[in-house]
Amino acid sequence: MDRDQALDLVRAQLTEHRYLHTLGVMETAIELAERYNADRDKAEMAAIFHDYAKFRPKEEMKKIIETEGMDKRLLEYNAELWHAPVGAYLVRKEAGVEDEEILDAIRFHTSGRPGMTNLEKIIYLADYIEPGRRFPGVDEVRELAKDNLEEALILSIRNSITFLMKKNQAVFPETFYTFNELVLKNRS
Amino acid sequence: MDRDQALDLVRAQLTEHRYLHTLGVMETAIELAERYNADRDKAEMAAIFHDYAKFRPKEEMKKIIETEGMDKRLLEYNAELWHAPVGAYLVRKEAGVEDEEILDAIRFHTSGRPGMTNLEKIIYLADYIEPGRRFPGVDEVRELAKDNLEEALILSIRNSITFLMKKNQAVFPETFYTFNELVLKNRS
Repeated sequence: MDRDQALDLVRAQLTEHRYLHTLGVMETAIELAERYNADRDKAEMAAIFHDYAKFRPKEEMKKIIETEGMDKRLLEYNAELWHAPVGAYLVRKEAGVEDEEILDAIRFHTSGRPGMTNLEKIIYLADYIEPGRRFPGVDEVRELAKDNLEEALILSIRNSITFLMKKNQAVFPETFYTFNELVLKNRS
Repeated sequence: MDRDQALDLVRAQLTEHRYLHTLGVMETAIELAERYNADRDKAEMAAIFHDYAKFRPKEEMKKIIETEGMDKRLLEYNAELWHAPVGAYLVRKEAGVEDEEILDAIRFHTSGRPGMTNLEKIIYLADYIEPGRRFPGVDEVRELAKDNLEEALILSIRNSITFLMKKNQAVFPETFYTFNELVLKNRS
């Protein structure tokens, strides 16, 4: 599948606003892949498809999580998390993407996970800093991303956790395990 | 054991500064116990002994954690956490305190835990807001503590997590789980 075919498939799933966000993530992910020695084409594909399931009905996502052997804890936490693993599932099923590295980058682009691959980090971060993003703290992460992928990732995860906690929302355990792993690793 | 005997035992373990902090925690814990229907005398005892192990050598604390069947994960996280479970152990062994509710309040006064008892919440919070504490955000927690123990606890835990994350320190999982449990419970 080439870029244009992928973009056509995704465009049909998204609002115009979310499609523009996707183009921003794609552009940013390619830049990061080139900067941090990841596979450029996988970064492109993962970015294009990362929000594929974003607008699926909650009930459909819930059912897929329940029936496809996904982490059931997801259902106790913010539904915003669901489109990532459900997206990985649907992108394989409906768009025929079979590459596990791409699918994992889609799967973990919202929660993160301990042991994130380089590609997973890039998609997580590209989603956070793409040019259309405007929120407090994003510029600092953009700056860090210019020369330290890991530091940028730590700051983006920390900001996300802080944001959720301020809204008195529970934080998915894998997300703070990701934070912990990254800071423990960088300290030693 | 009466208050004065307990204070004498604790004073011998602490610096003057930390002893004054302990008196503040005692006073605050008694107030909170009266306000939130906890056992006044247990709150007093737990507060007096909460920092009993604060100045034990790290090596001694590490050994106790390893040999007394405590949560080994503690050793991977900030050593600031260690004095709480080690304190519960030493307060039983050296001061002869046998009351499990008091010992648990000492044990979990730094990490928190899901399913905290009323007494545990009171000691955690008293430690955070006693009159000697001066740090950004403490007054807001003090205000909340006047009429909502749970909300005050949530804010104090959130502040502590945010503080640790800003210093790029790993956060003990039980602390996150405590936060999650409290906000999930308060939401439903």
